[in-house]
Order: sequence, then C-alpha cells, then structure tokens
Amino acid sequence: MSPVVALVGAGPGDPELLTRRALDRLSKADLVLNDALVPEVLLELAPKARRFFVGKRAGRHSIEQATIHRIMIRAAKRGERVVRLKAGDPFVFGRGGEEALALLAAGLEFEVVPGVSSALAGPALAGIPVTHRGVASGFVVVSGHAPTAWKPVLSGLSAANVTIVVLMGIAARRDIAHFLIERGFSARTPAAIVCAASQPEATRWLGTLESLAQAELASHEGPGVLVIGEVVQLARTLLPSEPMAFALAALG
Amino acid sequence: MSPVVALVGAGPGDPELLTRRALDRLSKADLVLNDALVPEVLLELAPKARRFFVGKRAGRHSIEQATIHRIMIRAAKRGERVVRLKAGDPFVFGRGGEEALALLAAGLEFEVVPGVSSALAGPALAGIPVTHRGVASGFVVVSGHAPTAWKPVLSGLSAANVTIVVLMGIAARRDIAHFLIERGFSARTPAAIVCAASQPEATRWLGTLESLAQAELASHEGPGVLVIGEVVQLARTLLPSEPMAFALAALG
Repeated sequence: MSPVVALVGAGPGDPELLTRRALDRLSKADLVLNDALVPEVLLELAPKARRFFVGKRAGRHSIEQATIHRIMIRAAKRGERVVRLKAGDPFVFGRGGEEALALLAAGLEFEVVPGVSSALAGPALAGIPVTHRGVASGFVVVSGHAPTAWKPVLSGLSAANVTIVVLMGIAARRDIAHFLIERGFSARTPAAIVCAASQPEATRWLGTLESLAQAELASHEGPGVLVIGEVVQLARTLLPSEPMAFALAALG
Repeated sequence: MSPVVALVGAGPGDPELLTRRALDRLSKADLVLNDALVPEVLLELAPKARRFFVGKRAGRHSIEQATIHRIMIRAAKRGERVVRLKAGDPFVFGRGGEEALALLAAGLEFEVVPGVSSALAGPALAGIPVTHRGVASGFVVVSGHAPTAWKPVLSGLSAANVTIVVLMGIAARRDIAHFLIERGFSARTPAAIVCAASQPEATRWLGTLESLAQAELASHEGPGVLVIGEVVQLARTLLPSEPMAFALAALG
C-alpha cells in the first residue's frame, strides 16, 4: 500500500507526460487538490475523486496554504486517498516541502511522486536543450514571481556557459532582462518565452534579452517559462517551425 | 505516427517513473540505444527491440558519439523505430542536442520525450525539496565530470538562497567542496550524496560541505547526485529514516 497522501507531479500538461505512478495514484484517488496550471484533461484521469481547486491565479485571491493543509489532513484522517496534484514537479516551487512538513506534523505518511518539470520540458519541447556541449554546461532555475526570489540567485551569474530558466516569468520579463543587461549580459543574448509546452495551445517566442525587455505580448500574459542563454539559438535549427506543429508531432 | 527516432528520458530508474509516452515508445521500438545509467528493468519494457549499449562508464572506453549517431541514422533509414534511451531527461547533460542535430543533418525527423530528471528526483526521493520558501528560491544544476564544466557556473554563486545540484558529482565531491568553501560558502553548509534514487539500491549520505570534502565513501563511487544548500537540512525531518525504506514505500 502506498501512503494515503501523495504529492504528485503532473508534468507539463500533456497526459502522455504523466508518469505511470502519477496515473496510478490519480486512478485510485478519493480527493484531488489541484493547482491552476493543471489542465482539466489530467483531472479526468481521477474518475472516482472529488476535486478541490486550490490554485493561485494572477490577480485573484487564492486559498491560503494553511487551508490546503487542513483539507488534505482532514480527508487523509478519514481514510481517503488524497492526491495533491501539482504542475511539473511537486518540489520545484510547488510548496511541496511545506505540505509534506504539515502532513508529518499531523502524524500522516506521504509520498512524493516526482514529475517532469516544466523547467526542463518547456525548453525541450520548444527545441531548446538547457545544456549543450560547448554552449552551456549548467542551468539555473528561478521563479519570476517576486524580485526577492530571483535577484539573489541571478546576481552572481555571468552569461557564459549557463542557461537561465525562469518559471512563472512572463510578468517579470522586462525586469529580469534589464537586470541581466545591467549586470553585464549582452543585450543580444538569445531569449525565449515558452507557454503551455506539451499542450495543444503551446506557443513559443524567440528573441534576445533586449527584445524580451521590450516585448509586448498580449497573448502571453498567462504562465510561461523564460529561457535565457546561447542554447536558445539551437531552437532555430532543432525546431525551425512553430512549436504547435512540434507539440502535435509529439502527441504521435 | 510519431517520428521514427525518439530521444527518450528514462527518468531516475524506477519503471513507475517512466512517462506514459516513454513506455509507449519503448513498447514499439525495434532498436534501443541505452546509456550505462539505464537499469535493465527498463530495457525489458522494449521486448521487440534489439539493444545497443552505448554507455560511458568511469575508467572504461566508451563508444564515440559519432558512432552513436551512425547507428541511429542507419537503423532509422532502414525504417526501424529507434529509441535513444537516456537516464533522466535527454536534454540534461545527455548530448540529446547533439544527437538531434545529427538526425536533422541526416534528413530524419525526431521527437524529444522529456523525462523525470535525476537532478530533481534524486533530491526529492531523498527528502530534499530543491526549493523551499524562505530557504532556497532557486537551484543550479551542473555536471561534475570536469572542472571546466562546473567552475564557471558555480564561481558566481553565494550560499544564500540557492541549492546546488551536481549530477555525476561523486568523483568531484572534494574539489567542489573545497572550491565552494574557498569562495566563501560556510564549511557547515548542509550537503548530501544521493545514489540510485528510486531504485532498490538507493542510498543517501547527509553531512556538510566540510565532511563532503573529507568523505571517504567506498560504496559511493558509482554515479550519484550531490546536493548542497540549506534545503538539505529538511531531509532530516521529511525523511528521517534511511532512503531504502522510502524507496520501498514509494514503490507502493
């Protein structure tokens, strides 16, 4: 028997990119608590489950973290099988650690089911390998939701040899681009915005740090991943067409 | 129909952490080219396929990258369905980008099937969230295989607020620990070594940068992931017992 509460990574959105364990836990779940970024098609894989939307959307109030803990704990203590379904991976900016601590404090067991993180799948499905020999020998992942989150991490980086991935980065794209240029990054450093990777509505924007700073992307105000670094240039060869075609091809 | 060559992420090793698409591509494959880090149990999921081991093991000669390209291209041109199976994710230190470029140059289509990266699943399954509110607001991933790969990336980092993940980092653990301490990291910064995460033989070592530098770990000379940063401390609460028990629990 698996523990009664599973913190499950949903991957980037395409049901084919769920892990087998995630699918198993969904199929057996009595209660699913899901974020805003988890598409409906994934929730349909939990046919027995009641659903509880606990997501945070830009500009909207969201459920308090303590309330999420309370709902999970109450259901688990009733013996329900609970899945906390998080976009991407549960331990990457998902508050999975906080939820795990709350479950332990309540005397409950939990398991973590790692998922395919959008920090990697977003770039990959847009034709961007985050590492590439001779181009980038490492990558950095931050969240764009607040400058206090990304500034301390990005302040020490130089452009050479590293790829920067910013989750939830659309709203902060100008601030991040200006910050990096001020710190010595070339304004011509390639940059990309990837939205809804692996999903039918996937879109990709390719440019530079300079054009990222100036970008007016009315259609890109939702969640998305920024990718900054020389590896972005590879996308023009690896995936010359629009990512839509790529997403469809990948759906097989 | 999916493209004839698939660059597939195998995840950290547990077959339950394969994606559904990876499983599908394996089940249909005529030829699988696999790395050293891919366990046998995953290859059994490709019952029709011939297997070609192209891995690099420490201290052994490995097949040249150009040979891998040639084998893939020849098989694909014969109409065989080829899976290039890579531990973790194909675009994270897997030379997936190089292989994709070679396939394109040969006029072949390919697809990328993102996988659960060991850079995230390794820490997670050892009880370490790579991000945690108030502890780490970002993470950096490098490969330990050569100082030229990790030094330029790590040289600008400060210990505060960032988690460092080093794939293939066991052999370089002393050099990396000394380097970070010289750069101003506290010798008491928590550090972990995670080996074979998600697999029955999973092991975890917890210590500090200082003890990492001094660590003599005869049983840990295989591949493994280093995790450095304050988040490592959370493992003592989230997973107080040995990771073996955790791995078995997670196998459910």
